[in-house]
Amino acid sequence: MNKQQLIEQIRVKKSFLCVGLDTDIEKIPEHLLTEEDPVFAFNQQIIDATAPYCVAYKPNLAFYESLGVKGMIAFERTITYLKKNYPEHFIIADAKRGDIGNTSSMYARTFFKEYNVDALTIAPYMGEDSVSPFLEYPDKWVVLLALTSNKGSHDFQLTEDCKGERLFEKVMRKSQEWATTENMMYVVGATQGKMLKDIRKIAPNHFLLVPGVGAQGGSLQEVCKYGMTKNCGLLVNSSRGIIYAGHDKDFAKAAAQKAKELQQEMAIELTNIEER
Amino acid sequence: MNKQQLIEQIRVKKSFLCVGLDTDIEKIPEHLLTEEDPVFAFNQQIIDATAPYCVAYKPNLAFYESLGVKGMIAFERTITYLKKNYPEHFIIADAKRGDIGNTSSMYARTFFKEYNVDALTIAPYMGEDSVSPFLEYPDKWVVLLALTSNKGSHDFQLTEDCKGERLFEKVMRKSQEWATTENMMYVVGATQGKMLKDIRKIAPNHFLLVPGVGAQGGSLQEVCKYGMTKNCGLLVNSSRGIIYAGHDKDFAKAAAQKAKELQQEMAIELTNIEER
Repeated sequence: MNKQQLIEQIRVKKSFLCVGLDTDIEKIPEHLLTEEDPVFAFNQQIIDATAPYCVAYKPNLAFYESLGVKGMIAFERTITYLKKNYPEHFIIADAKRGDIGNTSSMYARTFFKEYNVDALTIAPYMGEDSVSPFLEYPDKWVVLLALTSNKGSHDFQLTEDCKGERLFEKVMRKSQEWATTENMMYVVGATQGKMLKDIRKIAPNHFLLVPGVGAQGGSLQEVCKYGMTKNCGLLVNSSRGIIYAGHDKDFAKAAAQKAKELQQEMAIELTNIEER
Repeated sequence: MNKQQLIEQIRVKKSFLCVGLDTDIEKIPEHLLTEEDPVFAFNQQIIDATAPYCVAYKPNLAFYESLGVKGMIAFERTITYLKKNYPEHFIIADAKRGDIGNTSSMYARTFFKEYNVDALTIAPYMGEDSVSPFLEYPDKWVVLLALTSNKGSHDFQLTEDCKGERLFEKVMRKSQEWATTENMMYVVGATQGKMLKDIRKIAPNHFLLVPGVGAQGGSLQEVCKYGMTKNCGLLVNSSRGIIYAGHDKDFAKAAAQKAKELQQEMAIELTNIEER
């Protein structure tokens, strides 16, 4: 999916919600455990229920890998299901990969050719040649970690160099030498609040993937205040807050309700764009 | 495997060689492609041939993931085969993971409990809480990226802060607040040569996993000159240089020969330890 198509989906749906499919076999409703593939059964119902309210899905690979081969089958089935039934939804594989060139090329082939997702999260530590193999696929996106939502983000990402440039700023500046606003987004945690103002100085037109609203405590309003652009420029992710909203047979309904609430807040934020 | 056991293996084998199982379906000898599981068939023969000359194996997850579910089955079978037939070999899953706490916990469970490997490579960008879940498993190791072997390592890892501390140095210093020499190693590329001298100032007693000898052009002698400690303190990895040494039915024999050559060079370096 290209940038224009993504912007159009946000306009049509009045939403920039990304639903995180962090599907944990230990947290899904008990009645699903008798299914042949409980993780896929859960995802299918969550997707059907939340699709009207979101523009993107973000399965987190860790949750699938933790189940070994079975989990990877569930991941594959989820992607296939999305592609077939909701082709207008943007799919981000949250894998935080990044390795030397020939290895990154393998990962790129896996995610963009085999699984055919739209985007992949990438860790920047190893530099340009660890990222560039992912940029060779048309209409595919690198979502590069910049300033993450967790406490440990302060350990290295805020380290200032002699000119006062912080590491996450250097990552964003440098990576613009390799990629454009058409094939790169940045991960910026919702918990970083006002820092989004600094982020927008370096990347005024990039899409940002913003996790951390909900379970991690970030505020949607603050994210929009400091991070929204005239094209929206945001994909705000919620995982646990949506998919585990309910715990019984009505879990999908509860998830839809949570997704709808966020979508409605987003619709209001989007009407404010013209005033920016 | 704990540190003392690893040191003992190095002493017994007169080797600190790690064989990288970067098994690429497009590069293995053609006659294996008719096997039911060509990747595992290749690994099995490589392992049987090289086991006398190495103390560790490092399957690179990218190569297995790129084949989807089939690849993960080959990975699982490889680990099971190693555990059963070569229990004294140290197994490093080269996955370069790292995510927010609850996700890192999932990865830790996957690799240390499900697959039961000894060590996992981890990217440090997200800081302490992305690493610490991996440190909770006794006799399991985090192999943290410090100064990698690729060209892009210069993009961020060498960035100096105001006090002149480079990012890789900060990563090594900070991470010693979370972990010990008994559960953490660092990745330092063989291509970094004399930088190993600086590395040893910060981490005089840690094991280093050193990729980049062979195909990437690093020198074993230089690595030993600047990086070896009285307990050896090195695991030197070669992947392509060993496993693709031959291309026909004798591929495993060719791999054994390359591994043996490296082991013999290592034996010489190990006898020099007393002189250090």
